[in-house]
Amino acid sequence: MAGDMTTFKGKPFDRPSLESLMKRRLFYTPAFDIYGGVSGLYDYGPPGCALTNNIVDVWRKHFVLKENMLEVDCTMLTPHEVLKTSGHVDKFADWMCKDPKTGEIFRADHLVEEVLEARLKGNKEARGQKVDVEEEDPKKKKKKVKNIAAVKLDDALVQEMEEVLAKIDNYNGEELGHLMNKYDIKNPATNGHLLPPVAFNLMFQTSIGPSSNMPGYLRPETAQGQFVNFQKLLEFNQQQMPFASASIGKSFRNEISPRSGLLRVREFLMAEIEHFVDPEGGKKHPRFDEVKDVELELLNRDVQLSGKTTVETTKIGKAVETGLVDNETLGYFLARIQQFLLKIGVDGKKIRFRQHMANEMAHYATDCWDAELLTSYGWIECVGCADRSAYDLTVHMKKTGAPLVVREPRKEPLKVEEWQCDLDKKRFGPKFKKDGKTVEAAIESLSQGLREKLSLDLEKEGKIVIDVPGVGDGKVEVPKELISIEKRTRVENVREYTPNVIEPSFGIGRIVYALCEHSYWTREQDEARGILSFPPTVAPTKVLIVPLSSHADFKPFVRTLSDKLQEGGISTRVDDSGASIGKRYSRNDELGTPLGITIDFQSVKDNSFTLRDRDSTEQVRAGLDEIINAISSLVNGREKWSDVAARLPKFEGQEVD
Amino acid sequence: MAGDMTTFKGKPFDRPSLESLMKRRLFYTPAFDIYGGVSGLYDYGPPGCALTNNIVDVWRKHFVLKENMLEVDCTMLTPHEVLKTSGHVDKFADWMCKDPKTGEIFRADHLVEEVLEARLKGNKEARGQKVDVEEEDPKKKKKKVKNIAAVKLDDALVQEMEEVLAKIDNYNGEELGHLMNKYDIKNPATNGHLLPPVAFNLMFQTSIGPSSNMPGYLRPETAQGQFVNFQKLLEFNQQQMPFASASIGKSFRNEISPRSGLLRVREFLMAEIEHFVDPEGGKKHPRFDEVKDVELELLNRDVQLSGKTTVETTKIGKAVETGLVDNETLGYFLARIQQFLLKIGVDGKKIRFRQHMANEMAHYATDCWDAELLTSYGWIECVGCADRSAYDLTVHMKKTGAPLVVREPRKEPLKVEEWQCDLDKKRFGPKFKKDGKTVEAAIESLSQGLREKLSLDLEKEGKIVIDVPGVGDGKVEVPKELISIEKRTRVENVREYTPNVIEPSFGIGRIVYALCEHSYWTREQDEARGILSFPPTVAPTKVLIVPLSSHADFKPFVRTLSDKLQEGGISTRVDDSGASIGKRYSRNDELGTPLGITIDFQSVKDNSFTLRDRDSTEQVRAGLDEIINAISSLVNGREKWSDVAARLPKFEGQEVD
Repeated sequence: MAGDMTTFKGKPFDRPSLESLMKRRLFYTPAFDIYGGVSGLYDYGPPGCALTNNIVDVWRKHFVLKENMLEVDCTMLTPHEVLKTSGHVDKFADWMCKDPKTGEIFRADHLVEEVLEARLKGNKEARGQKVDVEEEDPKKKKKKVKNIAAVKLDDALVQEMEEVLAKIDNYNGEELGHLMNKYDIKNPATNGHLLPPVAFNLMFQTSIGPSSNMPGYLRPETAQGQFVNFQKLLEFNQQQMPFASASIGKSFRNEISPRSGLLRVREFLMAEIEHFVDPEGGKKHPRFDEVKDVELELLNRDVQLSGKTTVETTKIGKAVETGLVDNETLGYFLARIQQFLLKIGVDGKKIRFRQHMANEMAHYATDCWDAELLTSYGWIECVGCADRSAYDLTVHMKKTGAPLVVREPRKEPLKVEEWQCDLDKKRFGPKFKKDGKTVEAAIESLSQGLREKLSLDLEKEGKIVIDVPGVGDGKVEVPKELISIEKRTRVENVREYTPNVIEPSFGIGRIVYALCEHSYWTREQDEARGILSFPPTVAPTKVLIVPLSSHADFKPFVRTLSDKLQEGGISTRVDDSGASIGKRYSRNDELGTPLGITIDFQSVKDNSFTLRDRDSTEQVRAGLDEIINAISSLVNGREKWSDVAARLPKFEGQEVD
Repeated sequence: MAGDMTTFKGKPFDRPSLESLMKRRLFYTPAFDIYGGVSGLYDYGPPGCALTNNIVDVWRKHFVLKENMLEVDCTMLTPHEVLKTSGHVDKFADWMCKDPKTGEIFRADHLVEEVLEARLKGNKEARGQKVDVEEEDPKKKKKKVKNIAAVKLDDALVQEMEEVLAKIDNYNGEELGHLMNKYDIKNPATNGHLLPPVAFNLMFQTSIGPSSNMPGYLRPETAQGQFVNFQKLLEFNQQQMPFASASIGKSFRNEISPRSGLLRVREFLMAEIEHFVDPEGGKKHPRFDEVKDVELELLNRDVQLSGKTTVETTKIGKAVETGLVDNETLGYFLARIQQFLLKIGVDGKKIRFRQHMANEMAHYATDCWDAELLTSYGWIECVGCADRSAYDLTVHMKKTGAPLVVREPRKEPLKVEEWQCDLDKKRFGPKFKKDGKTVEAAIESLSQGLREKLSLDLEKEGKIVIDVPGVGDGKVEVPKELISIEKRTRVENVREYTPNVIEPSFGIGRIVYALCEHSYWTREQDEARGILSFPPTVAPTKVLIVPLSSHADFKPFVRTLSDKLQEGGISTRVDDSGASIGKRYSRNDELGTPLGITIDFQSVKDNSFTLRDRDSTEQVRAGLDEIINAISSLVNGREKWSDVAARLPKFEGQEVD
């Protein structure tokens, strides 16, 4: 797949050039570089930071503002108990194995995968077969296994190893340990023996307060803060359902061995929506009609299980109708996610939606579709859209007793026929003494079926015997003087339910990186200089101001233009260095600056300026106000360059290189 | 001072009412409330989050955009070595003492302060003197010392204790221990003995990576990430000085016992600017002229040392001229800070700038002015503006060897007469073997004075003896065959210097809280309902849309208005509940929503609407486009309500309560 990766101009994409540009122009840089850096930590420099902020801004308008979502900002520090309840303390882990001699630590699944792949490649070479340029996987960029001898393997072994690789995401620690023994997998560098895999929790641990008796973690997702506030959010929303909360902020995962630059890091920006919906009535969405004709590339679970990756172009309305996508709410968000990605400039031909297979879903999910973007690392998960069902609200409610439920009046009262137990409380206490409450609770929790059966016992034997763990020998006798069991009709006027949660979760750093790959190209005449064709809305700087020279005559014009544009919230950068105009423009093409204004001697005479378009390098010339208006229209997305070029006089002066 | 606190309408300010409103309407809430909460951690709900985002947005335009600052986003996770170098590992600590029986932990300075204050109060009561309602200090909200018997104290002791209190911020751990012994200070609840104070570092510690051999911390400020990237930022800025970097993000302090709601918390949003300036030439600022007439309320160091708090209203130009404020750059930022605070709606009469006294400054600062805002907790530091001199760049450069300096061509070459040491490197190696490099480095670092003296030794004795710690007995003899020392003239064409840093540092959470206090009031006729008069630019929601009822006829108008306003990036909220119009408006006055649109039967007929102003409750009536335009002007700050009220027809219909 990586072989297919081309720029949007159809030329082969060259990752090293882009990465060099991004580091050189400070889109990002390894954090604490002067201290040798820390793997998996990156800082965003001015263009990367501005690009990210602009994308977040579009996100907020596209989702939060448009749908009146309740944006919250919850703490990253999270006490142990909350993440114990959510399942993260027990399940949010990878398997690692240690070389006891060197102290090196390997992520077990990655190591097995790399070694087997290397051996399969060696086998092909030994057989004189063509070795494919494999699809590069982001998990494997810095390969530990560099070279391996060309050794021919048995056909049966080859098949077996290929099957292991196809299921590599499914093995638990014990199974990975077996595979390592079976295939004699050791430290690739030293051939040293490795200890069996042990679970490594991916959360950063710390201690809150001075007495170190409150262990805590840095959150691995923003979601939990939203769940624990559900009750208050519902109240804020005047008890109206459905509604969504949203949160934008950093989360943390202590990756065992981070790789692939910005794609797998230890600290990252997430934007998450938790849409709370009634599980009854098919999870309809009130605005689904607005998106039903949006076409998506869908790669469903069954196709993948059959070993293929064929996508189907489907209108989301159709996909929900046929049940391929489970419900309207999930479908609505898939469509809205695609609209967002297109709005910020992601290449529409490099988006697909892949359904998770049952065994790869997170512990809380019941269904999940990923928006994947095609990059030179392969198809990368950039947005997850999971149905977390009632999992989180249920576990937090069970743990804390807080009513994380919706209560709504029923239009028709509900009549329920049920077996009810009545206790004679006055006599109950004296008989069971300190165990009274426990026995009472055990009776409360009896199922309807059991109650029916016990009512017969009571009639026949004059007593019932029930299980009450922890009291006496675990069996307790209750005589009929203390209890009666009757079938009655109960009328419910209020319906109480735990909402389900549909969660679109955006990895902003991954989207930023994929967008950079999708926006990168070079001009025919100047292959050495890259161009990043970001849409003006998200471009880090909107306008480059270029006075012909640093001559004092030009300075007031620079100031006027900067001030006017900044008043309109439009970011500018001035380059009055001695370099040629052409060079100054091409330096800013690298930063993705979509527009440039030249101030020349003519400007001093008549207050007119040239405006240049980054992508076409076309220029127009007009007076101050017309230029400012054109820029404002372009940046706010009201006009395209072709519109501006059509209505303002073309300027044919040469860019002097 | 707290007694002076009134609303901007001149009525006494009632903190409990505001706090109740803010929690009830979900501006903020204790984090993990359903789990019992964690002290010092708060979540921001929808209005608090939107208010904060809007303030950050204004900040970015006011500082970053306006002055082309280089905004960066650096990681919160920070390795030990970086914070060891910056001094935080050793010095960023408070003193705590523990009750060995109960395990309780007290912050030593707070405890001494509270106990002595309580005793002084008891003394006054015993003498029958009037007890002042003391200025409440944010450090002391939840007093551990609640009541104390009225005991008369000796005059000398009273004076001594008052002197201790005046200097309470200056004591180190040992001194605090002495005070606790001297005044017999114990656990106020149990009267139990306390252990002597020990330093407690305020950084949250964690471990990066799986092998737990890389200790790290959550950053206590955003500044260090900017300093370690200085070299790259200077390069990005095309080597031009001065320039500023900026960063907006969360920082963390593991407070011993957090108090005072949003004012002293463990996780908080900061916005920090690091302005890098040449230390020579008086730290001029190119745009100082634009602010020189801005008047500030200044409380200088000398006035405070004399025990007073008298502020002086001074034009910043004058303050810099007289040396009260050290230099133009510092002065420029003080003025710009005030302009920012006014822009977001802080009450101008509740701002002052207080200069730090020498002994209260952070370990890195050489001068510091705080912008303090008057709240019901007293004057609160909300923005610090410190001159960190060359401290940080110097220590990081020394530790890593990275050239965190500016190099610029000299206009006139500089001629330096100096003593130079020349070594015979060929014979140097064989003589000193493995110690060669160390001896060489020791010679390199000899001062000019010492070189002059040694040149005489060399002439007289034929050898020199220098100190080289770690080699032999620490003294090394170098014979004249290996070294010569001569006075020569060196010509420097390049000037190299370490920039100084002026750092305006904003505690956004504190500003948000102070702004809420400054914006809060109640109407004469309805004291129970609060109003938050935020300027439209920062108000969480701009427009409330109120259809007369939930009748279907009104729905298309609700949708049209919402869509039109959202297209312009203006946030709306619809209230179609059954409550009266008046009640719905007053519910949104609590949220600070500045504008309201009513849709009534007339709207259905002629597409006209009423627009209501939160503060005056005045209403105007006009057609759709005029209403939308008026709102846009008000939200973008182009018009005030009085302008709109003057040009659109007044609407006199009653708000029905």
